[in-house]
This record gives sequence, C-alpha cells and structure tokens, in this order.
Amino acid sequence: MTRTLVNGVEDTRIAANDRGLLYGDGLFETVLFVQGAAPLWARHMQRLARGCASLLLPAPEIHVLAREAARVVQGMPRAVVRITLTRGGGTRGYAVPEKVAPTRIIAVFDPPFIPMDWYARGIRVRFGELRLSVQPRLAGIKHLNRLEQVLARAEWDDPEIVEALLFDAKDRLVSAVAANVFIARGGKLLTPALEECGVAGVAREEILARYPDTEVREIGREDLMQADEIFLSSSVRGILPVRELDGHEFVPGPFSRALQTHWRARGLSPEVEA
Amino acid sequence: MTRTLVNGVEDTRIAANDRGLLYGDGLFETVLFVQGAAPLWARHMQRLARGCASLLLPAPEIHVLAREAARVVQGMPRAVVRITLTRGGGTRGYAVPEKVAPTRIIAVFDPPFIPMDWYARGIRVRFGELRLSVQPRLAGIKHLNRLEQVLARAEWDDPEIVEALLFDAKDRLVSAVAANVFIARGGKLLTPALEECGVAGVAREEILARYPDTEVREIGREDLMQADEIFLSSSVRGILPVRELDGHEFVPGPFSRALQTHWRARGLSPEVEA
Repeated sequence: MTRTLVNGVEDTRIAANDRGLLYGDGLFETVLFVQGAAPLWARHMQRLARGCASLLLPAPEIHVLAREAARVVQGMPRAVVRITLTRGGGTRGYAVPEKVAPTRIIAVFDPPFIPMDWYARGIRVRFGELRLSVQPRLAGIKHLNRLEQVLARAEWDDPEIVEALLFDAKDRLVSAVAANVFIARGGKLLTPALEECGVAGVAREEILARYPDTEVREIGREDLMQADEIFLSSSVRGILPVRELDGHEFVPGPFSRALQTHWRARGLSPEVEA
Repeated sequence: MTRTLVNGVEDTRIAANDRGLLYGDGLFETVLFVQGAAPLWARHMQRLARGCASLLLPAPEIHVLAREAARVVQGMPRAVVRITLTRGGGTRGYAVPEKVAPTRIIAVFDPPFIPMDWYARGIRVRFGELRLSVQPRLAGIKHLNRLEQVLARAEWDDPEIVEALLFDAKDRLVSAVAANVFIARGGKLLTPALEECGVAGVAREEILARYPDTEVREIGREDLMQADEIFLSSSVRGILPVRELDGHEFVPGPFSRALQTHWRARGLSPEVEA
C-alpha cells in the first residue's frame, strides 16, 4: 500500500527541482496510525513546528496534515504515514527564494513487521563505527539530511542484529540508527542529551513526560556496560528492550515492561502483543 | 531555460519515494559548459566517482552522463548543468535496498549573472556564524545533505555581500558557502585541508594541480587577517578575489590575477571578461 498525496493531490511524483531533493531542504515525520488514530500526533506536530522554526520554513497547517493523513490511512487498521515538508521548488543555489511555496508529501506504508520476540525477549544491538557529527543548529529535529543514518545502517547486514548504538566523535552516546536509547540504573532512567546531535524522538518525549525524573545527560560506553537495562524507543517500533549489546547480555527490566504496558494503554501496541 | 532529463527521458518530475528526497541519499555536480564543452569535466567525474565510493553507490556511466549533458546544453553558449545521482526508489527505512537502481537527473540552467566588477575589483565577504559539522565519512564529496549551506546562506541578505567564510567548531576555516578559499602569503598559496569537513571543489583541484606547492593545512582567523590576498574558487563562478572581509580591506594580488588568466586560457572565463 503506497497511497501518496503531494500538496493534497493524489500523485506519486514531485518536481525534480524541489529543494527537498536538491539540498535535503526539509523535514519529515513518520507517524504510526492504529485504527485511524495517531496517539502521538500532537508530539509529532510539535517537533515538526520546532523543525520549521529551525529551518526558517513556514509553519505547516496542522489541520491540513491531519485531514490528509486521515485520507491516506483509510481502510488500514495499522499504517505508517510519512509526512515530508520541503522548501519547495526554486532557482538553483542555496539562497532561500523570496517566495517559498513548501511541498507537502503525505505517503502511507504498511507498518514494518516486528517479531513478537523482539518485545518479549529483546533485540540484539551492535556498536556503530560511524561517529555522528555535532551540529547544534540541526540537533533534535527530523530533517531530510540523513546520509549518516544511511551509512550507519549499511555497516551490517546480519538480520539477527536489529540496531546499532551511535556515538559522536567525543564518545558520547547519541542514539540508535532509527531510535532513541534509554538506560536504567539504580531505579532511575538515563538518556542522552540531544542539544548537539541526534533526533529527539516523539517516543522519547512520551517517555520523558511519563518519567520526568529521567536524567538527560552525557552517556558514555561505561554507562551502557553498567546498565541494569537498556531499551530503544521509536514511534513506529515502540519499546524494544536490548538483550545483547556487542556480545554483552542484558535482561529486559521493569522500565521496559512498564513502558511496553503504557504503550499498549496508549493504543500504540505492536501488531502482535508481547 | 530548464531542460531536464530523468534517467535519460525528458521530464520535470521524479518519484516521491526517491531516496534522494527521503534522506538526501545521493550526490551532485554543477558543471559549467562553454560553447558545448566543459573544461573541468574530468575533475567533476573524478569527484563524482569518489562520492559514489564513499556512499556505496554504483559508479555512474560517465559516457551516458556526457551524452545527456551534451543534449541539454544544445544551443546554449554558456550553461550550468546540474547532475544529480541518487540511490533511487525503495522501501521506507535507512537500510539500502538489495537492488539499487540509481536515479540520474541532468538539468540545465543559465549561468548566474556575475558583475564584471567582482572579478576586477573583488567581492565583499563576511564571517559566517554557523559552524560546519565535522564528518570525515562525508568530507570532500558533494552529497545532497546541504542544510548547513542553506542555513549559512540565510544569515545575510545584503546583496553587496557575496559570500561568507565558514569555520568548524574548532575555529578552523573550511570554505565559503558555495566556494573554496585560498590565501596567499609570502609568495605561497594556502588552502584548508578538507579531510574532516567541506567540499573539495573541482576548481580547487585545478588550482592545486597548477600550484602543487600550495600548503593544504589548518587555517585560522589570524591567517586570514595576515593574508596578502584572499580569493574564492568555484567551478561555476571562477576565481573571485576578496576585497573586503568583515570590514577589513584586501587587494586582488598576483595569484588571483594569474589564476583568472589561467581560467580564461582554459576556456572558463566569466561571461564578461575582467
């Protein structure tokens, strides 16, 4: 299933001179819909608005996005909607055109298949080799410049390995390739600060709202090794406990389980419940 | 004039699920054509091949690019051809699809208008505020992740200011927004090393081939201030001497003039000669 609306019109193509393609000049969100509803919708829209402010893009019309998303998910009990917002077409060159007419792409996909076992027993994770670059001006937002993620994901093809943990050049943990990371230690949650690097996931925001005592700070490799539990969060994949990190074993703990329960209560359960 | 070929077919649109748009997963070159010839063609193709290797993209078929570029510039005495190469369409997600069918976009534009005065007297340049991020895996190549350049170019709108000099977080000079930077001091050329950051321009390569004694090294703000001359190099705009940097005056010197002469001899002269 790949229904796509481009600026509100059913279409599968965009202009070859769109700045989204020319320069990655735009943002995106991938929103999980369950029975036509997107429980994390408000958080997605908040991040999108933050991203627009960072990129000096006109703020999106939320009600239009909501209406178009509702249209593409029709008839799908579970769906992932990718909303892409670009600075639109324009003349060649980095300078922002005087009149910007953003391009809005709403595309629907089947949710990825996730084995029940990933939720129940946890996933296997590796250390990524690529170091994410530090750029405070782009940190936190979900922009279209994602070559680092493409290269990081290309480092392994073992299907038994689900994710990689990525660090910056100063050995600070940032995130997984397509998820945020949490550590539990001594009854407390920890997650990396993302002021300089990384994407502030909406699932991460949901977790921070639920556990406001979470320490948001620098996290190193030794913090990971001393963790009582480690889990990943993603708006599409939910709460994924880590059972193995680079050969070291971990056990899904109370935080992972409590959040998986919360996720189900929010109507964000995985296709097959753990 | 905006003739465009997408995978060899005259078209103005590409698939909305192209990874070039989804993730900026691709590369580009902007090639100046004068009377149907592109004097720096071989250097453009070398950089494109290097970029493909870095991004794990299939190498492009150079003869196809040459044929298609020749086709779009027909009838134009001077033209800029933008060649964009992406990883093509695919399923959602960062993982590279097993079968990659790259997208090839060849688009032609009129060259930018450049006042004769810029070559003769030099241009006014400012210091950029945005710090370019360090990423050795992407340094040197001309990939599609260009949000930093878009944000850096958006810092000023005074039409009298032509370019900005950009530094990394460690105060090392990298480049201008859309050009490389050279300094002359004591009869010697200097230019920033680009192993960690920046785009290695084909005009820069041409200059390094002409002046193999050029010192390629770390350059700081004080180096700029002590320069005998400063100039920018760009495959589209040629050799642009700096006459003012952040209020400090400079005079176009012998290196700028010799390279402008070389540029004309190579058939790369600006529209109106200095």
